[in-house]
Amino acid sequence: MIDEARRLAPRFAARAAGYDSDGAFPVDDFADLRAAGLFGLMVPERLGGAGAGFADYARVAYELARGNGATALIFNMHASVTGALSGVTDGLADALGLPPEALAARDQYLKAAANGSWYAVAMSERGAGSRLSEMTTTYRAVDGGFHLTGAKTFCSGAGHADAYLVAARSDADPAQVSQFLVPAGDGLRVEPTWDALGMRATGSHDLHVDVTVPVGALLGGVEGLALVVAQLAPHWMVASYAAVYVGVARAAVDAAVEHVTARKLGHLPAVRARIGRADAAVAAAHLAVLEAARRVDEAPGDAETNRWVWRAKLLAGTTAAEVSASMLEAAGTSAMRRGHPLERLYRDARAGSLQPATSDVCADWLGVEALGGDPDSEGSAPRW
Amino acid sequence: MIDEARRLAPRFAARAAGYDSDGAFPVDDFADLRAAGLFGLMVPERLGGAGAGFADYARVAYELARGNGATALIFNMHASVTGALSGVTDGLADALGLPPEALAARDQYLKAAANGSWYAVAMSERGAGSRLSEMTTTYRAVDGGFHLTGAKTFCSGAGHADAYLVAARSDADPAQVSQFLVPAGDGLRVEPTWDALGMRATGSHDLHVDVTVPVGALLGGVEGLALVVAQLAPHWMVASYAAVYVGVARAAVDAAVEHVTARKLGHLPAVRARIGRADAAVAAAHLAVLEAARRVDEAPGDAETNRWVWRAKLLAGTTAAEVSASMLEAAGTSAMRRGHPLERLYRDARAGSLQPATSDVCADWLGVEALGGDPDSEGSAPRW
Amino acid sequence: MIDEARRLAPRFAARAAGYDSDGAFPVDDFADLRAAGLFGLMVPERLGGAGAGFADYARVAYELARGNGATALIFNMHASVTGALSGVTDGLADALGLPPEALAARDQYLKAAANGSWYAVAMSERGAGSRLSEMTTTYRAVDGGFHLTGAKTFCSGAGHADAYLVAARSDADPAQVSQFLVPAGDGLRVEPTWDALGMRATGSHDLHVDVTVPVGALLGGVEGLALVVAQLAPHWMVASYAAVYVGVARAAVDAAVEHVTARKLGHLPAVRARIGRADAAVAAAHLAVLEAARRVDEAPGDAETNRWVWRAKLLAGTTAAEVSASMLEAAGTSAMRRGHPLERLYRDARAGSLQPATSDVCADWLGVEALGGDPDSEGSAPRW
Amino acid sequence: MIDEARRLAPRFAARAAGYDSDGAFPVDDFADLRAAGLFGLMVPERLGGAGAGFADYARVAYELARGNGATALIFNMHASVTGALSGVTDGLADALGLPPEALAARDQYLKAAANGSWYAVAMSERGAGSRLSEMTTTYRAVDGGFHLTGAKTFCSGAGHADAYLVAARSDADPAQVSQFLVPAGDGLRVEPTWDALGMRATGSHDLHVDVTVPVGALLGGVEGLALVVAQLAPHWMVASYAAVYVGVARAAVDAAVEHVTARKLGHLPAVRARIGRADAAVAAAHLAVLEAARRVDEAPGDAETNRWVWRAKLLAGTTAAEVSASMLEAAGTSAMRRGHPLERLYRDARAGSLQPATSDVCADWLGVEALGGDPDSEGSAPRW
Repeated sequence: MIDEARRLAPRFAARAAGYDSDGAFPVDDFADLRAAGLFGLMVPERLGGAGAGFADYARVAYELARGNGATALIFNMHASVTGALSGVTDGLADALGLPPEALAARDQYLKAAANGSWYAVAMSERGAGSRLSEMTTTYRAVDGGFHLTGAKTFCSGAGHADAYLVAARSDADPAQVSQFLVPAGDGLRVEPTWDALGMRATGSHDLHVDVTVPVGALLGGVEGLALVVAQLAPHWMVASYAAVYVGVARAAVDAAVEHVTARKLGHLPAVRARIGRADAAVAAAHLAVLEAARRVDEAPGDAETNRWVWRAKLLAGTTAAEVSASMLEAAGTSAMRRGHPLERLYRDARAGSLQPATSDVCADWLGVEALGGDPDSEGSAPRW
Repeated sequence: MIDEARRLAPRFAARAAGYDSDGAFPVDDFADLRAAGLFGLMVPERLGGAGAGFADYARVAYELARGNGATALIFNMHASVTGALSGVTDGLADALGLPPEALAARDQYLKAAANGSWYAVAMSERGAGSRLSEMTTTYRAVDGGFHLTGAKTFCSGAGHADAYLVAARSDADPAQVSQFLVPAGDGLRVEPTWDALGMRATGSHDLHVDVTVPVGALLGGVEGLALVVAQLAPHWMVASYAAVYVGVARAAVDAAVEHVTARKLGHLPAVRARIGRADAAVAAAHLAVLEAARRVDEAPGDAETNRWVWRAKLLAGTTAAEVSASMLEAAGTSAMRRGHPLERLYRDARAGSLQPATSDVCADWLGVEALGGDPDSEGSAPRW
Repeated sequence: MIDEARRLAPRFAARAAGYDSDGAFPVDDFADLRAAGLFGLMVPERLGGAGAGFADYARVAYELARGNGATALIFNMHASVTGALSGVTDGLADALGLPPEALAARDQYLKAAANGSWYAVAMSERGAGSRLSEMTTTYRAVDGGFHLTGAKTFCSGAGHADAYLVAARSDADPAQVSQFLVPAGDGLRVEPTWDALGMRATGSHDLHVDVTVPVGALLGGVEGLALVVAQLAPHWMVASYAAVYVGVARAAVDAAVEHVTARKLGHLPAVRARIGRADAAVAAAHLAVLEAARRVDEAPGDAETNRWVWRAKLLAGTTAAEVSASMLEAAGTSAMRRGHPLERLYRDARAGSLQPATSDVCADWLGVEALGGDPDSEGSAPRW
Repeated sequence: MIDEARRLAPRFAARAAGYDSDGAFPVDDFADLRAAGLFGLMVPERLGGAGAGFADYARVAYELARGNGATALIFNMHASVTGALSGVTDGLADALGLPPEALAARDQYLKAAANGSWYAVAMSERGAGSRLSEMTTTYRAVDGGFHLTGAKTFCSGAGHADAYLVAARSDADPAQVSQFLVPAGDGLRVEPTWDALGMRATGSHDLHVDVTVPVGALLGGVEGLALVVAQLAPHWMVASYAAVYVGVARAAVDAAVEHVTARKLGHLPAVRARIGRADAAVAAAHLAVLEAARRVDEAPGDAETNRWVWRAKLLAGTTAAEVSASMLEAAGTSAMRRGHPLERLYRDARAGSLQPATSDVCADWLGVEALGGDPDSEGSAPRW
């Protein structure tokens, strides 16, 4: 699968300028991903997937992002959904007391992914951000299922996915927050709000939800599981972007090398020094991402694993921003023209530190942790 | 005039998003500048202008840039032309042996500026950059004047100015590089190549020149003066951008304060620290620009003056880039949406270090100078 | 006086390694200062002094610090005492209702300074830092004067000054904090605690106070004035160090230039770039210090003045640390040997950000201020 | 062995202030190393050693440096000698055409190490640095061996080692540079020149050589092998310090956490942010060192291995300097007192970027390499 990702990256790169310019969903990249079977990356082999772990995912995401960071970010959402679903093993389901129908539904969704379906995530809301405890989208039981009502934002790939993971709060018992997998179609309306500095092709528009879903759409088959699942898989919320931004940073180094070589600027000492320092910084951030991912597979939820997850996010975000800025300076004015890879990578990279958890929040989390406090509840800035 | 610039800045700011989005020349801003008499800023009072010095210019440019950096950059080119023309005093003209017709022409061009004409600069060429010694645009004497042929790039305001300062090399004697003031009209063709990361509204397109001009268009009335004039007024080539980028940086701090206040994020310590450090950095860079400008007026060409000119450029470029990036992080994801002032300022600010002399070239120049070398001829990177 | 300071600086520089190595008070530097009349710098001319303002002081301190930062820091304490005393004009004394004896005492202390006495400051206490509101040193009225008891720390020049400014709290009314000028002699005991990374020659030892002073030692002649005076002259507490650290930073650039020239390393591009960037950074920080000082003279206590005072401290501290580190890297391993100017300057410079108000506190203060808050009472870190 | 290193580190830490203050060789630390069998770390098991590889070494060095960086640096020289000797396998010896006596000598030296002897390195010379091609120390054949004459500098542990690796040039054929293992004793004179900012306890004094050694002291038994061996084991010259400096950086974070906790400063947001960012930076640099070390074992000399070696050195040097400076700021003024761990760590850490290859040289090397050049021969700064 990593080889497939490597094979696709140059194709993505060739299309990236166009999707970025139009702020358009990368239709052809996703056709490539489907054809390469990458939608089944996180699906267990018994269901027709590649049975990848988190470390495999991180490697794939890095390679895809070297082609187009925006494509990798949307793919990341699908990987999160299928990865989290796959993480609900039969053993865990048993421990959580999930009904057999829930397992059947899980398998069905995963099988569909292996067969070429992909899922987006509609979690964030204006005001609440991605904090589940603050959700205002609600659901209520109706004949044969549930009716969901609300408005979501930052829904990458909105309007293109086959289904959407929607977090909502129970009308009847506001303490319960549940996740639903809502199929594309009537009842979901995309409001094209996404027109951003970078990562323009993610199409992270608003999604208005006013839809009835069957009982099977309730993930886990039991209400109120959203927070439990989030706590079991925090790496998807914090660390999964990290691989993407390191890939973007590496793409910036590569683009600078190509530009500088073509323009015969490689003899300039300042250019060399910038490229040398950038290369080392990206390589180190990449190691941190791989280390975090390795530990997520080996010891999910361990204190040291979580520490690495936050370190990875912090390092990826800051490195991407600093490296892409320095590479633009190494390349010079001509790289500022729209359509030049560095022009786009510079904007895309900037989003890394800003995506939650932001770099400032990560630094605070790590500081509280190092000082022996509880970084999830203390802290001078709001957590996600 | 500074008060006028302050008065106009909010008007420019209100229009900036539109011009940026379209990459369109700021027509209304320039109408405002004309109406306020700012085209006559550098014109001596005896010719109907404000008789401003370089320090006055730096103050005006800073204020204009707080409204729209792109507008300020185009204005900077006009100020350079009129400022350099005004700098050719009768005494200097005498010393250079300029003919009386040249002085009459000078006065005519300056009077026209005081009356509402404005001039653009068509100096840079692909490959040559802004180095006069490398120009490939040529001219030859023809009946009643000169014929100029060539292609220019990075011509801010192309297609909108009343006349263009064009640098060209003599066909007959390639050692001679001269400057002409070419009126808008037939023989000048704009090729819309400017579509850049930042400073989009400068419309710094390519300009194709194939035009005959009267004798009076030859500035100074004597061929081969271009390098002499450049050496007499290096501050226009290195330092005049600096005031603009400090204005952009201050605008970024102001926009962050406004955003953070509106979103009630001012209690976050990381946000405070970012804004506090940014405020100090911008204030210091601003002082450096004013100090350079003050010295340009008092002791043009002195070693210490030149040192300040290069320091100002270096500090303005690096400060603008760092401050605008940090302010975006302080403001958060919502400030990344197109149309948000910080989204534009972040891109505009990035151009500062890249405009010649780049930050890396400035650092090298200053280092050679501090070490007792000749920074204009030695150096590990090409000078302008 | 600035010329005198410039004349003395090379003499200080020649002795600096010795005093640093021994952590010894710079006896010969202070003999030079006395001989040059610099103890009278801040004393009004009518009392035999130079009648300097704060801006003059900042210039002198910068020049002295280029010779030896530690000497300049001790001198700074004397300048603070005499500057603050001179700041109590007859008009202000009237407004504060000070008794005539207090004015006579003021004049006597200032005259003594003009005649060669110098004063140290014993304000900080362990735990309380330099916050007057936290002082635990106390005084009580006794026959013919007051008795003071307590322990002070960070008393630069302890054991060498002619008198010490001691802040103490009234035994009878703990709300009253007063300042006394305590003559050297019995009742003051120096505990040699100062053995620090940098600024070793300041001899900022602990001072144990158990002493009876005459009535006239109570500054202002009225109890409880300490906080009022501090608020009237905040620049002495925040900004007066700034000039010293910029001088240290400039000395580091100069030492690097000398070292690099002697070793013939000036052709190395990385060395040039480091020196060029350092030169610009120091120049900008210096301007900020001078601007703050100018405003302190022109509009003491104004909001914009205070802003500049905090900016100056922040910029001086961070610039000194960054520049001296980079200059050491430019010079290479041989500059790490003890006795090499850069080895000492690197350690001395480090103290700048740590001296109150620390750089982190300055950043917070400026951020709160920019966001429209009250930076003296709000803030995420304790003020002084 | 890593456990042993972990066990010893706190003992080293407890003694570090004393050795640092006196600039004294860490006698007790070396007794501990001997007792723990660590002198045999790099010695093959068949000769009584631990048979460690480079990755094992990097782990041990990191742990030792958390106790005392200076001790770890001296140990590094011994590890380099024994590691390089162990690297001359029988197969390699065959390929190089080494005589059987040379293998016997190799085994004898390694056995002695396993039994408690340790070796220092006397390679650098004033002027030549550590570049073998510039050595001025010479040797000539004499009855029964060789006579060596010259002066070395930066010889860590001078006066305490059991033998010294001395590089010298043949009197008869200046193209030949050979390495000798010279036993301690007559003919070697230590000149105590080492009195440095940091890493004071390494005692890296000058060593004057005027000594006759037996034939067996010529390493490899063949003249002129020095450059060959250096090229076969570049990691010892570039990367082996890296682990030490990352250990020092981690010690600085730990010391800051301890200080901040004791002083109850952990609630300050700026302190948290500093510690959080430092933790992530050190963790990433550590990964880079381990990655380089792993690759040295797996694919010594590969292009990608060498890239990691240079990256590791660059990252370790810059991270150590930045982190220790920030930790000192987090801890505040009281951590500047001599004897405080952070005061020492700050000085020790500073040496990292300056030790060859310096950070600037590393950046240039990596830049040339990324641009497809030959970083060992091209480059704007001298290589080692």
